[in-house]
Amino acid sequence: MPAFDTVALIGRYNTPQNAETFVSLGRFLEDEGCAVLVEKDTAETCGVSGFGVADYPGISAQADLAVVLGGDGSMLNAARNLAPSGVPLIGVNQGRLGFMTDISLKNMLPSMKRILAGEYGVEERTLLDTEVVRGGGTVFSTIALNDVVLNKGAVGRMIEFLVYIDGEFVYDLRSDGLIVSTPTGSTAYALSSNGPIVQPGVPGVALVPICPHTLSNRPITVSERSVIEVTVKRAIDARLHYDGQLHGDLEEGDKVVIKRAAVSIKFVHPPGYSYFAMLREKLHWSEVL
Amino acid sequence: MPAFDTVALIGRYNTPQNAETFVSLGRFLEDEGCAVLVEKDTAETCGVSGFGVADYPGISAQADLAVVLGGDGSMLNAARNLAPSGVPLIGVNQGRLGFMTDISLKNMLPSMKRILAGEYGVEERTLLDTEVVRGGGTVFSTIALNDVVLNKGAVGRMIEFLVYIDGEFVYDLRSDGLIVSTPTGSTAYALSSNGPIVQPGVPGVALVPICPHTLSNRPITVSERSVIEVTVKRAIDARLHYDGQLHGDLEEGDKVVIKRAAVSIKFVHPPGYSYFAMLREKLHWSEVL
Amino acid sequence: MPAFDTVALIGRYNTPQNAETFVSLGRFLEDEGCAVLVEKDTAETCGVSGFGVADYPGISAQADLAVVLGGDGSMLNAARNLAPSGVPLIGVNQGRLGFMTDISLKNMLPSMKRILAGEYGVEERTLLDTEVVRGGGTVFSTIALNDVVLNKGAVGRMIEFLVYIDGEFVYDLRSDGLIVSTPTGSTAYALSSNGPIVQPGVPGVALVPICPHTLSNRPITVSERSVIEVTVKRAIDARLHYDGQLHGDLEEGDKVVIKRAAVSIKFVHPPGYSYFAMLREKLHWSEVL
Amino acid sequence: MPAFDTVALIGRYNTPQNAETFVSLGRFLEDEGCAVLVEKDTAETCGVSGFGVADYPGISAQADLAVVLGGDGSMLNAARNLAPSGVPLIGVNQGRLGFMTDISLKNMLPSMKRILAGEYGVEERTLLDTEVVRGGGTVFSTIALNDVVLNKGAVGRMIEFLVYIDGEFVYDLRSDGLIVSTPTGSTAYALSSNGPIVQPGVPGVALVPICPHTLSNRPITVSERSVIEVTVKRAIDARLHYDGQLHGDLEEGDKVVIKRAAVSIKFVHPPGYSYFAMLREKLHWSEVL
Repeated sequence: MPAFDTVALIGRYNTPQNAETFVSLGRFLEDEGCAVLVEKDTAETCGVSGFGVADYPGISAQADLAVVLGGDGSMLNAARNLAPSGVPLIGVNQGRLGFMTDISLKNMLPSMKRILAGEYGVEERTLLDTEVVRGGGTVFSTIALNDVVLNKGAVGRMIEFLVYIDGEFVYDLRSDGLIVSTPTGSTAYALSSNGPIVQPGVPGVALVPICPHTLSNRPITVSERSVIEVTVKRAIDARLHYDGQLHGDLEEGDKVVIKRAAVSIKFVHPPGYSYFAMLREKLHWSEVL
Repeated sequence: MPAFDTVALIGRYNTPQNAETFVSLGRFLEDEGCAVLVEKDTAETCGVSGFGVADYPGISAQADLAVVLGGDGSMLNAARNLAPSGVPLIGVNQGRLGFMTDISLKNMLPSMKRILAGEYGVEERTLLDTEVVRGGGTVFSTIALNDVVLNKGAVGRMIEFLVYIDGEFVYDLRSDGLIVSTPTGSTAYALSSNGPIVQPGVPGVALVPICPHTLSNRPITVSERSVIEVTVKRAIDARLHYDGQLHGDLEEGDKVVIKRAAVSIKFVHPPGYSYFAMLREKLHWSEVL
Repeated sequence: MPAFDTVALIGRYNTPQNAETFVSLGRFLEDEGCAVLVEKDTAETCGVSGFGVADYPGISAQADLAVVLGGDGSMLNAARNLAPSGVPLIGVNQGRLGFMTDISLKNMLPSMKRILAGEYGVEERTLLDTEVVRGGGTVFSTIALNDVVLNKGAVGRMIEFLVYIDGEFVYDLRSDGLIVSTPTGSTAYALSSNGPIVQPGVPGVALVPICPHTLSNRPITVSERSVIEVTVKRAIDARLHYDGQLHGDLEEGDKVVIKRAAVSIKFVHPPGYSYFAMLREKLHWSEVL
Repeated sequence: MPAFDTVALIGRYNTPQNAETFVSLGRFLEDEGCAVLVEKDTAETCGVSGFGVADYPGISAQADLAVVLGGDGSMLNAARNLAPSGVPLIGVNQGRLGFMTDISLKNMLPSMKRILAGEYGVEERTLLDTEVVRGGGTVFSTIALNDVVLNKGAVGRMIEFLVYIDGEFVYDLRSDGLIVSTPTGSTAYALSSNGPIVQPGVPGVALVPICPHTLSNRPITVSERSVIEVTVKRAIDARLHYDGQLHGDLEEGDKVVIKRAAVSIKFVHPPGYSYFAMLREKLHWSEVL
């Protein structure tokens, strides 16, 4: 009896070169006694056939585990889609390991074998819930695993925000933008903007300004129970992104309300997984000048 | 009936110029119906007389509130002494307000009047517990409110540590030192070493390297439930400081074990206190280039 | 005999509220024996009359000094227009002093009196010359006093550049953008992206990446005699700005060639001007936490 | 005829394991027609025999080239000793290449062959001249190739300096210390304290504060023609280091005067040397997260 009965396979769109890998993984899982479902868009755009096909609602209803073949971007997308369902995720990376993809292509089958034998860890990651409020109504809402970013657009002029935490005024920020990041997102865009690394499991949300005009304007980590409100005070051209996806324009007066999402996503880790070992590898900490 | 029956007064050592302020505060508190105790060393070295005198154990046993006249350094010292007792602290600053001293000298009496009338907030701040283990035995232990710092001494050569979190290896750090900071300490020394601000209440501990050789070696915030072990791998001359106080030398092979202290300290805040307003004021965020 | 015979007055467009200041400055200069010219667009859009009017070519041909009423943005614009002519500039700021505007409104007339009496310093500032080369031809060229910025546009995805100095490969940069800055620009946008301050007069040009993916990718100051070539390797949406002005889109394969301009601009400073005093004031260095 | 007639060999003290390398290099050079001299302390402490021996004055008088076997520390030491003589240096590194040691052990003989055939580049690097003035007299002076560092000692309290450039007041610095760095030193200690990289050849000197209290206190690059004066305003325990060597204590009131040294040092580079390629290798720029 495998540890997970029904396993969904999810990939990057339009990567037919991965079809063979999907098929060999799918057959391996079937041989191990699992039912296999391929995510609908993945099946269609990568040309994977010979298995059941399901869209995200179907996977949410039927799968016990989802395996993502791709990079951190594919993991983010799958996580936003599957968080409400509780289906856990694990990532396989064709190239270099990612911050969220633990298994290399080379170790894929042996790792999956051990995971199906019950050798794995489960970790819960928080997501952010974001609403854009305009003229009293919500014009957009989403969840995000890494971050929500308010930044300047094409015209390239500084934008100005008013930031409030739980109704308390924090600062008037003139900058290129503001990143609001989960611990998971702390090693993504926020890190390149001088944000701190926050170990997943720390119940905090990082506010990281991008090129702030006031030099003492440092990143702040606030409680994940906080409600963060960012009002667009002045902007010719401002945008909202979440997990690297463009939502669209923000207007002066828009209020972006960010808080911990009610749902979270479970990551399955292979035996031997270490968060800090992953950081050392990705950030070249093992090496000294 | 004042909100606090017995109030202890604590100051900087050897500041006789503050004696008059102590006396006027003491008399005011007596007029409000409080019993007043002056901390023994403060009474002796500042020349404050006319009130009961108590050492820290006495204050711990009898006081319902301690008022500290001084800067953040005086608050740190009082906090380490009073944390085990649960006696809450409030700070009055003779000069500029500090990160921990909320009340200016000018507002001292009106603020105390409102506090005694029950208008105040209470906030709990975590402390760190530190042990230096050498040859199997503990050679030093202390608690700290701001931070524990392992750094190089006079000879000025780089030192090398091995850092473990909950037994998991984090990194081999070659640097000038390592700051392990509470949220309270995140606006102290850690901030000048590029550490992130962590809002008090976030259950995290920041590891902030000082001048690390590896440029990608960024600050990390870990869970306050973590046990942080730092082993001195290579050091001609290494020191341990806590809250800016020098403990003394560290030797190669020493293991410094840092975790959240079992005790915490309560801060009393005057009405209208805002953590973020304090940050704006101290860090000049209100101003734009 | 005033130190400068013909003085041009230049302002921000569309600030009729400054007309009165222009008139009082113009009359004062005439009383001191100067001929006065008002820049054509300033005269028209601010409603300044009663003086001779000249466009930039006219000012270039006739003026011995140009006084700019406005902020650093007005100075940048005037500098790009007047650099080829050698006409020196001095800035008067209506609000807070700027990095380039030395004289406050309040001190305008007394300062000008001393300057006309010969009490002033002259400092030469370098500019950058930029060309965008596409398909073998130059599609855009400009000079800039502060900086040339290649950055991502609305879509908000990372862009990738190849950077060469004097034909030598420097790095493959994945980031939000790259700022190439003069010493003058080192206290502008580059400073908010962690760039170093470079004292005007140091013959260097700073390359400052914006949110680089590689954490060790630090700002570099190269010789002002260098030819800097930046090739756009990968970009869905990239833009070129100079001195905060948008030029327009960059395409994959575009080569941006940046070098010291053949022309420079002269700044006239009032007696007592100090670059470091200005920095202390603007960056709040006089204050300690 | 070799390009360099007399070649000196210089190593790390007390590394007898390098004796064999010295001997093979020395014999190779003799075979190529060079006269070989071994630095006296190197010969004695590493046990190198069979060649002429000379102390630094002897090398200065007789050698046309000095080859350093060791790391960047050995290069710094040799550079300070040989700068007055004009004898150029080249570095061979037994381990990983350094910022200043261009040749790996493996390529030592082929590289030297090409260099002796005239295939090499020469680059001139500036040094700093430092004097410590106390009570009107100079109590210490040295030259340094990388940097001069004023920092706190064992007690670990903040120190306070007054910094002047060419007699003009720059700032009152409360910090852990101040690094004054040449372009060569910009990739050494200064880089780990957030200093900018300055390409050798740029005539600038970087002032890099270590953990400054004022968060807006950024590194500044000033002209190499500047005279930098740092006065120790407040320090219980301050030290002066140069090129990582401890000079000794600084006292309150000491004035440290730093300017470009009258002498410089020549580096010989093997064919194909590229400064930026070396940076990419040392700082892992070739790799992307």
